[in-house]
Amino acid sequence: MTTTSATQGIVCLGLDPGTRNFGWGVVRKIGTRLLHVAHGIIAVESVGALCDRLVAIEAGLVEVVRAHDPDEASIESLFFAKDAQAAAKLGHARGVAMLVCARAGVAPFEYAPARVKRTVTGAGRADKAQVAQMVRVILGLREAPRADAADALAIALTHLQGRAFGAPVARTGAGARLKSAT
Amino acid sequence: MTTTSATQGIVCLGLDPGTRNFGWGVVRKIGTRLLHVAHGIIAVESVGALCDRLVAIEAGLVEVVRAHDPDEASIESLFFAKDAQAAAKLGHARGVAMLVCARAGVAPFEYAPARVKRTVTGAGRADKAQVAQMVRVILGLREAPRADAADALAIALTHLQGRAFGAPVARTGAGARLKSAT
Repeated sequence: MTTTSATQGIVCLGLDPGTRNFGWGVVRKIGTRLLHVAHGIIAVESVGALCDRLVAIEAGLVEVVRAHDPDEASIESLFFAKDAQAAAKLGHARGVAMLVCARAGVAPFEYAPARVKRTVTGAGRADKAQVAQMVRVILGLREAPRADAADALAIALTHLQGRAFGAPVARTGAGARLKSAT
Repeated sequence: MTTTSATQGIVCLGLDPGTRNFGWGVVRKIGTRLLHVAHGIIAVESVGALCDRLVAIEAGLVEVVRAHDPDEASIESLFFAKDAQAAAKLGHARGVAMLVCARAGVAPFEYAPARVKRTVTGAGRADKAQVAQMVRVILGLREAPRADAADALAIALTHLQGRAFGAPVARTGAGARLKSAT
């Protein structure tokens, strides 16, 4: 089990998987305050084969997890507006993301896309630009993050919004890590 | 680049990804002879969460690759007879499989399901029992392997059938390993 103090708060890693641009964002919640920690995109579009893209995504995510040591992770639940081919391809990147998180003891919580949009914009059918703009406002950023990273931050915000103040975070699963209380 | 001798032949790992039962099979080709090496199923049905299944699949595959040190790997190409949800779920397991192979320097070659069936049975629409039965005959096994493992062996056979006798095997990609000539 992991315990977090009210001062440190809870750090959540949000993930927006893709086989071209893989978005990630880290947000810390201290009490009711939401603080931006970092965000980025693992860009693998220039990497030729899907295989090698997955290797690059894994390496990038392992680095993000190592650098930010999240207490929890969140990801969009499977969504099937697109065709089966797109869903399957996305599944490859999502599978690698879930693997990396589970190994690190932070199996991702899942949220439906409409819920993520509603949480940050108030509307379940908001477009990407609206999401990025509201993420900018909520986290007090100077510029709106690029779409994939903004979505990842929005997913982290959605998860943190549902978390009770200062609640201890329990980690389970194969890769559970121990973190000392502070 | 890896070179193989005519005596050792080429070892191919065939993969049949699934999020319940993940089939694998290893076949060695020496000259025109096809020799059964091993096969098995990574059974993760009893593991609750998809996340943890992916961790178990990765661990199992890493062990298989370590034990059999394949020169090449093969997998069925994406096939969309099923619905998008099934395709996406399968994508998770397939992504982990491609990741493990690519890291080990054996990015899998892809073959369409109909071609695999045609190669081992002569018919592109053969059922699973026919495939398992023909795999048994071709490899001189006493019993037909279980469906998922039989499919994996069939995929390895399909790949090896297309390979020229004693041809050297070139490995490329991020995880390329060096193997000394024998």
